[in-house]
Amino acid sequence: MSKHRIQKLQEMMRADNISAAIIIQPRDLYYYTGTSQPCNLVVPHTGDPVLFVRRAEDFVRTETWIEDVQTGGSPKQLLKSLHEMGISSGVLGIEGDIVVANLYLKLRDAFSDYSLKDISPLVLTQRMIKEPGEIELVKGASHRFDLAHETILRTLRPGMSEVELGGRLAEVLFAHETEQVLFIRRWDDWLQPAGTIVSGENLYQISGHAMTVTGVGLSPAMPWGPSSRRFKKGDLVVVDNPLNYRGYHSDNTRTYVVGKASNRQKEVYGAVRELQDYALAQIRPGIWIDEVYRLVIRKVTELGYEEYFQGYGKQRGQYLGHGVGLELDELPVLSGRTHLKFEKNMVLAVECKFIIPDFGAVFLEDTVVIEENGCQILSSSERDLFEVG
Amino acid sequence: MSKHRIQKLQEMMRADNISAAIIIQPRDLYYYTGTSQPCNLVVPHTGDPVLFVRRAEDFVRTETWIEDVQTGGSPKQLLKSLHEMGISSGVLGIEGDIVVANLYLKLRDAFSDYSLKDISPLVLTQRMIKEPGEIELVKGASHRFDLAHETILRTLRPGMSEVELGGRLAEVLFAHETEQVLFIRRWDDWLQPAGTIVSGENLYQISGHAMTVTGVGLSPAMPWGPSSRRFKKGDLVVVDNPLNYRGYHSDNTRTYVVGKASNRQKEVYGAVRELQDYALAQIRPGIWIDEVYRLVIRKVTELGYEEYFQGYGKQRGQYLGHGVGLELDELPVLSGRTHLKFEKNMVLAVECKFIIPDFGAVFLEDTVVIEENGCQILSSSERDLFEVG
Repeated sequence: MSKHRIQKLQEMMRADNISAAIIIQPRDLYYYTGTSQPCNLVVPHTGDPVLFVRRAEDFVRTETWIEDVQTGGSPKQLLKSLHEMGISSGVLGIEGDIVVANLYLKLRDAFSDYSLKDISPLVLTQRMIKEPGEIELVKGASHRFDLAHETILRTLRPGMSEVELGGRLAEVLFAHETEQVLFIRRWDDWLQPAGTIVSGENLYQISGHAMTVTGVGLSPAMPWGPSSRRFKKGDLVVVDNPLNYRGYHSDNTRTYVVGKASNRQKEVYGAVRELQDYALAQIRPGIWIDEVYRLVIRKVTELGYEEYFQGYGKQRGQYLGHGVGLELDELPVLSGRTHLKFEKNMVLAVECKFIIPDFGAVFLEDTVVIEENGCQILSSSERDLFEVG
Repeated sequence: MSKHRIQKLQEMMRADNISAAIIIQPRDLYYYTGTSQPCNLVVPHTGDPVLFVRRAEDFVRTETWIEDVQTGGSPKQLLKSLHEMGISSGVLGIEGDIVVANLYLKLRDAFSDYSLKDISPLVLTQRMIKEPGEIELVKGASHRFDLAHETILRTLRPGMSEVELGGRLAEVLFAHETEQVLFIRRWDDWLQPAGTIVSGENLYQISGHAMTVTGVGLSPAMPWGPSSRRFKKGDLVVVDNPLNYRGYHSDNTRTYVVGKASNRQKEVYGAVRELQDYALAQIRPGIWIDEVYRLVIRKVTELGYEEYFQGYGKQRGQYLGHGVGLELDELPVLSGRTHLKFEKNMVLAVECKFIIPDFGAVFLEDTVVIEENGCQILSSSERDLFEVG
């Protein structure tokens, strides 16, 4: 890994009149330095960055490609470093969606000769377009989703509970070296790493932040994800199984039926499959994201599911998917408000679901990479409605 | 659950001249309202609180004991609510260790007639003393640790990898309804929910924030926790297995040997066991925490392990343990800088470890509740060095 990521950030900083940036968030640090240890990275608008190490210096020195590694990272040290770079005023970028108020106030006082500005939008915009090595790791995660899917086909039985299935998936996934943590940038959201496993009437209870098939969880302390509900013959079961492999995520979902699918289940699933195929067929470089969202909404209406697409009533997600990478939920948001073109090497989770009260939900989600002429699905699992148990 | 937790917070607020507080962090919300859904809680210094619901209102209305539940939560609505409470200026408490800079700046602008102050120290001080129902849940978590320990005794074998053992624990623990997420208040720290499983030479590599037996993880993207290292005859294996059961944590650690323990391993373990027994014997209501820390340090020196207690060289934890509850790492910190008395119904993780380069580590950690005359260990697992495989 070379310095080109930092150089690209510096280009964006100069275009935005940002004199320097202080990066402290572990995913952003990992992206720019190769280490996610507790560090503060000082990036001048031009010239070499300095990496201050708060902990685990031995690890940092073997992990990073940054040449100037120093011990410490207090505001005083960071200020001295900026002065040595010849930057004694101007706009200083910080991660405004990460730095907490107590730290923000310390930084504001220490850097009173500068004005502070949120630099996360630049960082996340850069991270939106993936490099080949990053795409390989998302593929690695997607292949492990295939293992999860095979495990579900093999083990899901009537009488088993949602959390028991979670345990079976965890056993396989953790042994295959997926991380036991999903990285989410929001300060107030967490997801279960063995998947959001949801069945029966839980399919149309929408809890927490995400307007999706959330499940109800085990208690109000974490009221989403798998519950102790046991699968019954005839149940629909949705498994939304994001994975983190060596720091990179995939996000895939399949829908199952316990026993034989009813005609109605087949019909509703057929519609969501048709919709997802339609959506994927629209995605290629140079096409507007908001325009594709509008086309998909039109298709939903043609299919007759406009009341249930991505939720129902007041609880509806207004999106078709999102970027995935070092965090599970990244730019771009695939929505009607994103006036931005699809680009080669974006990695996206494209998700179509119908959530229907008193019926259940069908949900198909694929992680794809955008190539020259369209998008490629990274999982090799079939995209059918699966009869299991 | 009644309003007494809010009334206690209001007492502390009045003593600190805080006019009102806005609570948004999910653990704090859960503590004061019974729901951890996306909400903003407005607490006046006296009188009834108002709970604003940003998402999942149906869930909130069944979960909370707050009577005044309203839809929304924008700064404008919060401001209106404060005015209706008759509070149009004064000190406004926010969680300064949680609220991110972008949100802080919005709140500062919206509440320009108030001065903002970090209220988390009050909240965390209140949460330090547990109620009977909370202690029961920590016991529930501790009993599940016993299941993890039994699983280790039954399954750990030479040739198995650290992550494979993690998968086995996950299968058992998730099926027994532990949460798949550990709640940590720091904005930049995450831990694997199936435990920090560390063996052989990994035992003396100290990575990340925590000065403890961290392991090296699977990649620099998350360089702590279980790795793909396979257990060998003669290895020491430390399993630090914090658990989250219905929102409440336990934190326990045991040390194992693959095959027969050597005399040296037995000797070092014997010392850590003696130290931990000594530490636990000191803890009872009315005794100073910093004084106990000093006594323990003196005992370490008597035992001859002063170079290795809680780490070695520059990488040493200066603490004997910490509170546990709705978050894994709570007040009080058991350190030489905590001039505070132990109190009845504190729930604490007490942890003694020696980390010795080129030897390994021995680590014994117990979650205890402080009762009238001393402390009670909540796990029923033996506290020995276990020969396995």
